[in-house]
Amino acid sequence: MLSKAQIKYIQSLQLKKNRQKFGHFVAEGDKIVQELLQAKQPVLAVYATRNWLSEHRALAEQATGADINEVDEATLKQLSSLSTPNGALAIVKIPVAETPVLEGRISLMLETVQDPGNLGTIIRIADWFGIPQVICSPDCVDAYNAKTVQSTMGSISRVKVMTAELAPLLGKVPSYAATLHGDNIAGFGKISEGVILIGNESRGLSDEIIALCSHKITIPRLGGAESLNAGVATGIICGRLLI
Amino acid sequence: MLSKAQIKYIQSLQLKKNRQKFGHFVAEGDKIVQELLQAKQPVLAVYATRNWLSEHRALAEQATGADINEVDEATLKQLSSLSTPNGALAIVKIPVAETPVLEGRISLMLETVQDPGNLGTIIRIADWFGIPQVICSPDCVDAYNAKTVQSTMGSISRVKVMTAELAPLLGKVPSYAATLHGDNIAGFGKISEGVILIGNESRGLSDEIIALCSHKITIPRLGGAESLNAGVATGIICGRLLI
Repeated sequence: MLSKAQIKYIQSLQLKKNRQKFGHFVAEGDKIVQELLQAKQPVLAVYATRNWLSEHRALAEQATGADINEVDEATLKQLSSLSTPNGALAIVKIPVAETPVLEGRISLMLETVQDPGNLGTIIRIADWFGIPQVICSPDCVDAYNAKTVQSTMGSISRVKVMTAELAPLLGKVPSYAATLHGDNIAGFGKISEGVILIGNESRGLSDEIIALCSHKITIPRLGGAESLNAGVATGIICGRLLI
Repeated sequence: MLSKAQIKYIQSLQLKKNRQKFGHFVAEGDKIVQELLQAKQPVLAVYATRNWLSEHRALAEQATGADINEVDEATLKQLSSLSTPNGALAIVKIPVAETPVLEGRISLMLETVQDPGNLGTIIRIADWFGIPQVICSPDCVDAYNAKTVQSTMGSISRVKVMTAELAPLLGKVPSYAATLHGDNIAGFGKISEGVILIGNESRGLSDEIIALCSHKITIPRLGGAESLNAGVATGIICGRLLI
């Protein structure tokens, strides 16, 4: 039985200011809780149904010091921001902020990406292509909100997500700005070092950032659509520059 | 003032069986209603707020025979399947089914794609790359449900979406099956004729369909993610084969 204070605390993590205050985020759903545990992420507590625990208790107990709680469906629903929480929910420590290292690797940089689902999809793409870090401008949507965490499908446990001012980081390694009027992405070969920059869903990258980039790249538009989804565009660019 | 029967009829179009019975679908939101009107799609009726009509009445009146109705926000909300309908809603005729033509063009084929948002994103990608038709297996999610129509961002007015059994269509032109264990997509050049096949979100393409395809293609996985979103995978493949 959870105390009112526990319930209130978990629910409070739906707000960014509380996630920042406590340094914790909530991961919801069977698959992602399993992935976080398997990836040895700092899981502080697991709240799960009897069913879920009957299958995954051993995995949950591997997490050193994790507080494991059996809860009924109704309580889980009360804790969750999803309409149908799926068996389990974990409280996880937000990783300590690291300074981005750009040399000798590929990074993604996101400027003012606003949609939580897009950010999650982009983190999942980074994970697929082995990109170790995603650097978000301070005005991007928070990576640790429930919707983003869920959209990463577990990739949040493998990709480092950082927040930093982007401009001071540009110039050190080749930078590829996704724009509507750059050079055809198909003309670029495979790269092994550099940053790929993706902008806001409707406005794209700011002129200030584009001006600082060494390459302006464009996915040629052959038909009538005005734009591509930010996640899809990220995937297409990675699919040209990284494989 | 709308009659109860009108309201009931529009709401009834939220169900596929009613869309099929009447041959009509609902498009919701400012942008998509504008796009459908601009593309001279067979818009039968427009329900819009005074604000929306003050800006777009001329456009709406271009649609021959379209019944234009001013409604208040509350009524619009009642008609809509969205939590925040955005100014306008249109009733549109579902295009008459055509037989797919595969020769001399690129087509997308989707097997058992289940998520409305994914289908909409894929239609938008087709539109971006100038792919004229998307052929859905009969067990795909219906292309004319509100969520899909909205996710296409207007592309549903430019791309032909058809439903057909896929197997009998294979063998006429080169076919590229997206699988987890095929040949690296980066090894293929640009194509100008053929079908690109994308499977179900969790199971992928069926063995039966894969066996009928001339090429098995794979986006190499360089990191830890188990899968890519179906829309993102479609974008990456189009970004390799079409530009």
